[in-house]
Amino acid sequence: MFITFEGPDGSGKTTQSKLLYEELRRRGKGVVWTREPGGTDLGRSIRQLLLDDQNASLAPETELFLFAADRAQHVAKVLRPGLAAGQIVLCDRYVDSTTAYQAGGRGFSAELIASLNAYSTGGLLPDITFLLDVPSEIGLQRATRQKADKFEQESLAFHQKVRAKYLELAAAQTRIHVLDGLQTKEAIFQQIMARLDML
Amino acid sequence: MFITFEGPDGSGKTTQSKLLYEELRRRGKGVVWTREPGGTDLGRSIRQLLLDDQNASLAPETELFLFAADRAQHVAKVLRPGLAAGQIVLCDRYVDSTTAYQAGGRGFSAELIASLNAYSTGGLLPDITFLLDVPSEIGLQRATRQKADKFEQESLAFHQKVRAKYLELAAAQTRIHVLDGLQTKEAIFQQIMARLDML
Repeated sequence: MFITFEGPDGSGKTTQSKLLYEELRRRGKGVVWTREPGGTDLGRSIRQLLLDDQNASLAPETELFLFAADRAQHVAKVLRPGLAAGQIVLCDRYVDSTTAYQAGGRGFSAELIASLNAYSTGGLLPDITFLLDVPSEIGLQRATRQKADKFEQESLAFHQKVRAKYLELAAAQTRIHVLDGLQTKEAIFQQIMARLDML
Repeated sequence: MFITFEGPDGSGKTTQSKLLYEELRRRGKGVVWTREPGGTDLGRSIRQLLLDDQNASLAPETELFLFAADRAQHVAKVLRPGLAAGQIVLCDRYVDSTTAYQAGGRGFSAELIASLNAYSTGGLLPDITFLLDVPSEIGLQRATRQKADKFEQESLAFHQKVRAKYLELAAAQTRIHVLDGLQTKEAIFQQIMARLDML
């Protein structure tokens, strides 16, 4: 089973994905936790290029293609091998992030993004996706308590477009479950476990 | 004016592009010499990832997207600004390399490559392209006198497919001029200057 976690920085998706990892391990399941960008050796180099605020001068297309390169490598070297070995694979950000940030936030054409997503994943989609939704003001506040990376420095308007695109995706696709990220960590995790126990 | 040099490693294209750079400078022209991959700061990081033989495990799609990222950055930060400033821009490898190596050599669909090329260049095509053509056996022999990078370690069959795609492109597009790379350096350069003097 392939499970992804989506949402803005500061939404709690990393916390929840790690809680799930621990819980599944406790239950004796074979489980892999990974993330994008940066889920492979090559991806960690790419992640540095992408998030380094020295690289504020990345052209938008450059950024887009770097994310696609990171994903193609991750799919080939981590996600597909993990799934083929019968592991449950948990991934912090995947293809919906590209749609939300690049089509929603940056305004790239939905057609281009869909085509890049198809090529970089080779068609591998999650079985289930948890979208942690928070108002953009609050996500930004939470995220910038730590050192803000490049995406976190984007304007509130950018983050609002990202959120709107995420919610649009969730409305169109049954695999995406929206969770209210303003709830307590424990309440959110309970909802995730309840949903998974139904599967 | 935007001039590109294409051909396999070992064809003499870097030598010729640098000879032209020197000659144009001698004539007092404003001229920029650059190359792909690696024509920007970011591109130099990407070039390392691409050509490092430690990264023999790059998925083919990863490689493809890294080249596209390098190009998008190069177009935005070097090529367009140079042309806008009235410079003659000389570039060692550009969009035809992607078609020859990735569609020809690797076998990616022509449609995918055309679409990536269009997005990574934003439609910027050279005014004239010099294709240095040599038999693949000889290009490989020449290139591997120095330490072979990843592309040079590919099989002879790969390099023959690259050459065939280059020649197919040249047959279809009048901007591409094929030069016999087995001639002397001086003879080739004379043909390049003759062609440019006609413009």
